Amino acid sequence: MSSYLLNAGPIPTAAIIVIGDEILSGRTKDKNIGWLADQLSALGIQLGEARVIADKKNIIIDTVQILSNAYDLVFTSGGIGPTHDDITTAAVAAAFDVPVVRHPEAERRLIAHYENTDLEFNEARQKMANIPETATLIDNPLSAAPGYIIGNVYVLPGVPTIMQAMFEGLKGKLPGGVVMKRITVQCSTGEGNIAKILADVEAQYHGVSIGSYPYMKPGHFGTAVVVSGLDDELTTEAAKIVEREVRAFGADANIVHADGTIVK
Amino acid sequence: MSSYLLNAGPIPTAAIIVIGDEILSGRTKDKNIGWLADQLSALGIQLGEARVIADKKNIIIDTVQILSNAYDLVFTSGGIGPTHDDITTAAVAAAFDVPVVRHPEAERRLIAHYENTDLEFNEARQKMANIPETATLIDNPLSAAPGYIIGNVYVLPGVPTIMQAMFEGLKGKLPGGVVMKRITVQCSTGEGNIAKILADVEAQYHGVSIGSYPYMKPGHFGTAVVVSGLDDELTTEAAKIVEREVRAFGADANIVHADGTIVK
Repeated sequence: MSSYLLNAGPIPTAAIIVIGDEILSGRTKDKNIGWLADQLSALGIQLGEARVIADKKNIIIDTVQILSNAYDLVFTSGGIGPTHDDITTAAVAAAFDVPVVRHPEAERRLIAHYENTDLEFNEARQKMANIPETATLIDNPLSAAPGYIIGNVYVLPGVPTIMQAMFEGLKGKLPGGVVMKRITVQCSTGEGNIAKILADVEAQYHGVSIGSYPYMKPGHFGTAVVVSGLDDELTTEAAKIVEREVRAFGADANIVHADGTIVK
Repeated sequence: MSSYLLNAGPIPTAAIIVIGDEILSGRTKDKNIGWLADQLSALGIQLGEARVIADKKNIIIDTVQILSNAYDLVFTSGGIGPTHDDITTAAVAAAFDVPVVRHPEAERRLIAHYENTDLEFNEARQKMANIPETATLIDNPLSAAPGYIIGNVYVLPGVPTIMQAMFEGLKGKLPGGVVMKRITVQCSTGEGNIAKILADVEAQYHGVSIGSYPYMKPGHFGTAVVVSGLDDELTTEAAKIVEREVRAFGADANIVHADGTIVK
């Protein structure tokens, strides 16, 4: 996509790695990909891919190496808790060829956290103070156990509420991109009816891309057409042409706000 | 995992490829990975990984080639509709080095389907009758446009209701595996307290694996311990030991049914 972008500056790219057998077995439904995708879009960071992988050390090592070479930023979620099946830290350290070391500040935070509870800061929990050498901490405002950054890899926990709280604190420090303009045109007709219109408008407007997403609701069906691009004016113009052409075809079409109400 | 399995026969492995810019932008939240993960678990097929990738031809080709070589079965979802951004079929055909051809039976079904509607079977919709040469059709009981099987790759649509209806028809034809026994022990204590118990039990029972998933509900928190294995008896025994040991530690622990009620 960046080939079209004059004067726009580079758009940071990102990948997500969800680490967890419980997602692959179906036991737990992933919520982190969708949530992070929204956050990255809002920051102007382009999510290039997401992978769900097993709690297996070699697979984690390979995936971290491949994706940290291919993308500007990599976010992992899962596998940094106290139990034997939490092997993300050992694998990430191996991926960067550094040892895992006890991090004094992480340990201090965990000791302070457990002093306020009736939980023992036992050997299992001490494991959460172990971090790959050279990594810097990501604060955990909910349960103290930190995440960390090593190279371009951001290591976060799998529990959505904790992951989200940690990402919120991280947001301001991420390299921001140009936020893409994204306009939705709701069309009361099947996408097959307007496929040619959409292809023609996209071909006409360089740097604007058009996605088409059919929906079915009781009583009617239709197509959400999403027109997106970095150039505000060009994207808006393309969306208006889609609206006009779909109406000319004989269907209802309206540019809508994020909540689905019509833009006047 | 298969290294432990004596007399169990091979377990088929699978990968999922979700194809769609709308998932990566956050606009649409994926539901297909979680749903397919449940289905595959129930069939005794081991889901090894899932990837969400962009609507880009080269990326689809590479991903299909890599995963169809690495796994017994590959399921794709998304990108087989009538619009210009639906490029999955062109990419899958290229991955298998075959041309895309008009499939007479697919065309017949689509013509029959559109005759019953007020929709025109126009050029865009005719595209849905184009299938990679040598592929066989997957029936679509909802909206006629078929999916297809080529090599070990099962190509399905992205809309969850349609994908699910098509998968239901496919189920009986998939190579079944041995269904894993999976027992949940709900423990009213933090996973850090029982980490050593879990690691010890797992080390004791070859072929049994133990996952630990913390949960927080208003007023209390705890850990769902999932004990799984192919040997029914061994897995049940390991789960009972976990229950006993966690109680001996001083916390409440109960083997529960899928709906969370206690097994008496």
